[in-house]
Amino acid sequence: MSPASRYTYLGPEGTFTEAALRTLPEAATRELVPMVSVQAALDAVRCGEAAAALVPIENSMEGGITATLDELAAGSPLMIYREVLLRIAFALLVRPGTGFGDVKTVTGHPAAQVQVRRWLSAHLPEAAWESAASNADGARLVAEGRYDAAFAGEFAAPTYGLEPLATEIHDAANAETRFVLVGRPARPVAPTGADKTSAVFWLGDDHPGALLELLQEYAVRGVNLIRIESRPTGEGIGRYCFSVDCEGHITERRVGEALMGLKRICPQVRFLGSYPRADEVPPQQRKGTTDKEFTAAADWLGRALDGRV
Amino acid sequence: MSPASRYTYLGPEGTFTEAALRTLPEAATRELVPMVSVQAALDAVRCGEAAAALVPIENSMEGGITATLDELAAGSPLMIYREVLLRIAFALLVRPGTGFGDVKTVTGHPAAQVQVRRWLSAHLPEAAWESAASNADGARLVAEGRYDAAFAGEFAAPTYGLEPLATEIHDAANAETRFVLVGRPARPVAPTGADKTSAVFWLGDDHPGALLELLQEYAVRGVNLIRIESRPTGEGIGRYCFSVDCEGHITERRVGEALMGLKRICPQVRFLGSYPRADEVPPQQRKGTTDKEFTAAADWLGRALDGRV
Amino acid sequence: MSPASRYTYLGPEGTFTEAALRTLPEAATRELVPMVSVQAALDAVRCGEAAAALVPIENSMEGGITATLDELAAGSPLMIYREVLLRIAFALLVRPGTGFGDVKTVTGHPAAQVQVRRWLSAHLPEAAWESAASNADGARLVAEGRYDAAFAGEFAAPTYGLEPLATEIHDAANAETRFVLVGRPARPVAPTGADKTSAVFWLGDDHPGALLELLQEYAVRGVNLIRIESRPTGEGIGRYCFSVDCEGHITERRVGEALMGLKRICPQVRFLGSYPRADEVPPQQRKGTTDKEFTAAADWLGRALDGRV
Amino acid sequence: MSPASRYTYLGPEGTFTEAALRTLPEAATRELVPMVSVQAALDAVRCGEAAAALVPIENSMEGGITATLDELAAGSPLMIYREVLLRIAFALLVRPGTGFGDVKTVTGHPAAQVQVRRWLSAHLPEAAWESAASNADGARLVAEGRYDAAFAGEFAAPTYGLEPLATEIHDAANAETRFVLVGRPARPVAPTGADKTSAVFWLGDDHPGALLELLQEYAVRGVNLIRIESRPTGEGIGRYCFSVDCEGHITERRVGEALMGLKRICPQVRFLGSYPRADEVPPQQRKGTTDKEFTAAADWLGRALDGRV
Repeated sequence: MSPASRYTYLGPEGTFTEAALRTLPEAATRELVPMVSVQAALDAVRCGEAAAALVPIENSMEGGITATLDELAAGSPLMIYREVLLRIAFALLVRPGTGFGDVKTVTGHPAAQVQVRRWLSAHLPEAAWESAASNADGARLVAEGRYDAAFAGEFAAPTYGLEPLATEIHDAANAETRFVLVGRPARPVAPTGADKTSAVFWLGDDHPGALLELLQEYAVRGVNLIRIESRPTGEGIGRYCFSVDCEGHITERRVGEALMGLKRICPQVRFLGSYPRADEVPPQQRKGTTDKEFTAAADWLGRALDGRV
Repeated sequence: MSPASRYTYLGPEGTFTEAALRTLPEAATRELVPMVSVQAALDAVRCGEAAAALVPIENSMEGGITATLDELAAGSPLMIYREVLLRIAFALLVRPGTGFGDVKTVTGHPAAQVQVRRWLSAHLPEAAWESAASNADGARLVAEGRYDAAFAGEFAAPTYGLEPLATEIHDAANAETRFVLVGRPARPVAPTGADKTSAVFWLGDDHPGALLELLQEYAVRGVNLIRIESRPTGEGIGRYCFSVDCEGHITERRVGEALMGLKRICPQVRFLGSYPRADEVPPQQRKGTTDKEFTAAADWLGRALDGRV
Repeated sequence: MSPASRYTYLGPEGTFTEAALRTLPEAATRELVPMVSVQAALDAVRCGEAAAALVPIENSMEGGITATLDELAAGSPLMIYREVLLRIAFALLVRPGTGFGDVKTVTGHPAAQVQVRRWLSAHLPEAAWESAASNADGARLVAEGRYDAAFAGEFAAPTYGLEPLATEIHDAANAETRFVLVGRPARPVAPTGADKTSAVFWLGDDHPGALLELLQEYAVRGVNLIRIESRPTGEGIGRYCFSVDCEGHITERRVGEALMGLKRICPQVRFLGSYPRADEVPPQQRKGTTDKEFTAAADWLGRALDGRV
Repeated sequence: MSPASRYTYLGPEGTFTEAALRTLPEAATRELVPMVSVQAALDAVRCGEAAAALVPIENSMEGGITATLDELAAGSPLMIYREVLLRIAFALLVRPGTGFGDVKTVTGHPAAQVQVRRWLSAHLPEAAWESAASNADGARLVAEGRYDAAFAGEFAAPTYGLEPLATEIHDAANAETRFVLVGRPARPVAPTGADKTSAVFWLGDDHPGALLELLQEYAVRGVNLIRIESRPTGEGIGRYCFSVDCEGHITERRVGEALMGLKRICPQVRFLGSYPRADEVPPQQRKGTTDKEFTAAADWLGRALDGRV
């Protein structure tokens, strides 16, 4: 297939990222290519070898995926076009014939360890944990006989010839991970009425109230924040940029005006896209912030400029 | 002369308002008509009998002139095109031949009394005060022999055949009054770089933070306030509208955007004009609020909407 | 009677102020003394000749009574202990035997003129208006035969031997005036649960955001404003102090902390008292602003200072 | 030695954490015990097996160390008593006799990889990277002959019998890591005039302006923020707590009042300590926020409560 129909993702095969990618209808007609890292998945898009990449950006246990946040903030610009929410539950994958009593060593990604700790101490208190580069990689190592069991998505079992010894494993019942589909910059997809807009802002001379001012640019236009994350700029302790998701679409007036306000007060701004919310929650819009009200106010100003008050 | 070349003012002849009006170069070629009240002066403009009216709007001792503020806020719309600042100092006008020892009764407008109280108790502690409808009217009553002396502008002496017994009388050295030249709504005069924009805002459901929100619409765009005055709406104790002067001209982007923001959150807004500041103080403009920066931000947004980030 | 049982009020007899004063139960056992001006009424309290003074501070048509606001802000300190709300309706008082057809001249205080203008043009379009120093004084002048009719409170009729030709006259149905009972500074009356706290604040170097900062000291502690009024400081155009009424009592923690915050940022603050609201409206209190929550937070801080977290 | 003289740290021996710990004068008289994880280091303190633990909390390349932030926010309370800033530069450690041409495989902690990437591609473009559990562990694996070279602190060389082939390696010249010395809760160390206060705040019902309100509790008291970091609460995507460092010491009034304000509006607050700033930068204090001004305002309020205004 051509690069135009190729999607990369954070691999290897059998990861939750692959499972998330397969929830997209278009995935059925794309070539899905696992990559060794978020950076590699995104670089393939940047250099034109793939049309888009699906990468995790946030999970409910660990917070923002810093590799993704930092890759999107730096390098040549990319844009988010879709998001996918995936509920996370693990299976304990073993070679056929393995029973609970046989499991002396378990493996998985370090992030998985955090999420199954209580289950593990309740069900396999004696098992020794060894970290793997990814959950899927852990499954491969079990298949190769290096460890006895791996925590991974149940969907990874067939890929590696394993069987689930237990499923629906998760210390926190409502754990989920958010993934984003990233492509090269282009016109954002049309607003759906329940959209999200992502951007990164660098604060300037680092004066005390700078973050407050940033938030007020949103607040005064009635644009609600969904997520705000500080990330170091690499210029020393205490120097940050802010990765922000807000309600609404860049084509909506209140969002556009807030972004312009931020563009004016921040030395650097990077727009990361407007796209449909996976949870389809419509915005809670304060009086005076609809497009209709923006247009009416602009009409009024136009009349005032002409002296027709 | 035709109404087009007629200016009304708060009379009678010999008031400070007339003196302020005569500081305008164009006054030399206009028919200047004194009126009995601010309302009468403005109504002549409203009904087309005069091109403009000069009325006092604020003085440094008494604050806002409520008759003017309320007249501008209600009735058919008017707009401010100029402002005039006049330093206020009184003369004590007497009939020729009158000496200090002869002054048993003094008169003047009640506002004058407030401003000469200390002088009076120092120089004429025994004199009885009687209020007049205006300072000029007081001078007339002295000329008619009803009182012995009147506080008025020195310039009123010849009009009434009086002489100044003392001049430069004022308890507060820097007292001044601000007057505005008001006409029917038309395109505002071009910005000069040191302008002022006036408007009246009605708050809606009167929720606790409404005034704070009003001020934030200005603050977030870096537009400084010069004057804010609460006025009752007449709908009961505790119901106000706010008369606000801010720095800048409606054609400037930061001012226009603030006004539109206020238009969106307030149930009613009345634009009262953008006009040159009499004190010619240029605005202190915060980074990110110049028209150039507004334009650059709008260009950036336009590119983002096209995916050119 | 002794000064301790003497109350002054803005006279003369028969004014609305006297009517408001007589609504206070204690008025029955006090010597009520009319004074010629707000200043005179308050000065009698300042110099110990009276225990308290009742003066108007705000009316729903004209706004703040500037004489009262300015007297309370300057001179030796006074405090407000009570407020009285009085619904305002005028009677047209005439000498017995006078009919509508006989009324050629009418009088009253200029403030009354504003409030009966529409009634007058509907019922007595030909009558000439002459202003009087007070409504009661107008009644006296009618009794003396100088004018034909006076607008005043109906209760003023017997005092001057007049009769009401019409009653319940008012252009605005819900017009009312707020009066305050003012005494020398002492411990505020105990909180009732529906109280009001008044103070005057001077802003310092007059930087653009000073008013916003003033309001935020209230807002951040969840203290709602009831009234805010700018008054000139007399130091020149554009220099103001702010007279502010807020919900709550100085003994309540949120109010006390807001006042201390204002004391810290303002070069000058004058506390004017905490007293029961005449309308008995209890405060809308935001979560986290009750005294109980303040105490719990202080306890928590005390523990944290001791390392008991 | 007894637990009272034992300090744990994020091991193994030879890590930057150990180097940071050794910069503390008291380290010379303590038993320093390396632990396998931040959690293990802190748990030793929690259960009384050690007096304190030194753990990394933030680095200038990667941002907040989430393991440390999350451990401090959850579990039984701990407090920070000191911070240490350590400039980060790597050495490339090899077995004696190894030259650049012999290096086919390199190892180190994944965080090190991020910080030496450019150096590596310039000097050893062909070398294969394998991650180790820590930089010190990488050194151990080189000593055991498993890899050819390890990125670690130069100080780690003698511990593992290695030699530096290159030193002062770092892609970003000013990279540094911040470490905190954590103990069981006790009275904070006395203020030095250049202090920092750390706390964690949970927002309640997650209303749009909650973060803005949180920041305003600091801003209105003139307390500057140094660091703010959002961390997931584990209750689902979009649910955060905020880890915040501000200027000043809990014993200072402006800081104490801000913390109490936050305690009142947040459903949960955890105080993490007040301690000297490693960079010794004194606070930029706004007028009206010194302890002296707080005391003066409290005295003023006390007088007002007594009617002595």
